[in-house]
Amino acid sequence: MNQVIKQNGTTAPMQIVLGVDPGFSVTGFALVAKAQRITVLDCGYLKMSAQKTLSQRTGEFYVFFQQKIIEHKVTHIALETSFLGKNAQTFLKLGFLRGVLFLLADQHHLVLTEFAPREVKLAVTGSGAASKDQVADMMIRLFPGLTTLPQVERADATDALAVALCGLWNQQSYMQMLK
Amino acid sequence: MNQVIKQNGTTAPMQIVLGVDPGFSVTGFALVAKAQRITVLDCGYLKMSAQKTLSQRTGEFYVFFQQKIIEHKVTHIALETSFLGKNAQTFLKLGFLRGVLFLLADQHHLVLTEFAPREVKLAVTGSGAASKDQVADMMIRLFPGLTTLPQVERADATDALAVALCGLWNQQSYMQMLK
Repeated sequence: MNQVIKQNGTTAPMQIVLGVDPGFSVTGFALVAKAQRITVLDCGYLKMSAQKTLSQRTGEFYVFFQQKIIEHKVTHIALETSFLGKNAQTFLKLGFLRGVLFLLADQHHLVLTEFAPREVKLAVTGSGAASKDQVADMMIRLFPGLTTLPQVERADATDALAVALCGLWNQQSYMQMLK
Repeated sequence: MNQVIKQNGTTAPMQIVLGVDPGFSVTGFALVAKAQRITVLDCGYLKMSAQKTLSQRTGEFYVFFQQKIIEHKVTHIALETSFLGKNAQTFLKLGFLRGVLFLLADQHHLVLTEFAPREVKLAVTGSGAASKDQVADMMIRLFPGLTTLPQVERADATDALAVALCGLWNQQSYMQMLK
């Protein structure tokens, strides 16, 4: 496991958080870690072809995130809680992808935390009612490198980054409590 | 792959269908095959402890069905389509388990077919409005061995068997069309 040397000379396991904003067409993801400062290890999106069956896309999603978890030695997964929108079948299918992440958390012994959308917006912008664009603007202000992502999929990636940061801060405050 | 010798002396791959009625507390399952006649290879239920996290239960569900698929050389998965009930969060979580079955279908190259509940009831009882008890009675009439299952979980197992038979008949009629 990755370790960080704490100021008092002891070591603490490094928290590496995978934040995901799942979707069957575009899924945003971000991998963040905190040593001296918060680092974005990877941030982007997975686009799956509508030509593939749901089963194939579920398989593709599993393989993609399993590789990210292994490659970056992920310790935590952070997700937004999901609410029923207009389309119940879309909501059910989102459950497929969330289920894959819950499965990967079990298989790789990761801590999975869910955050309400309002909680994520509040944490990253200071307002629980912030728009998707305001979240994106704040993420880009913090990590200017994100502007290299294509405009269309950028908001999915910045949403995932916002929830990943929540996962990291949540863990930090938890670590703080243990001191 | 298992093979059946057809009457004209050629061989056809044997269809082995896994029918599942998923649930986070009790999941019914049935494995059926057709050679000379329809055989129930296995039929029962998976009970998962509410003490475990959703992530652990999703993992347990995956391992359980992966083993069944490998052990019985399953070729098809049959599921009932899912409809939104009173509780949206229960519906979303059912999506987790359905997602695991879609994932296993991709990983093991299985054909996954969904049937409307009405379609299943109609196929096995002759009435699309049949009750759960009527489905259970018919399944027990066809396969008296099912009475060895405990009363409480039996209906989950018989529901899964009904959908597995649908999967088998669906495939048979498909094979018929190909002749």
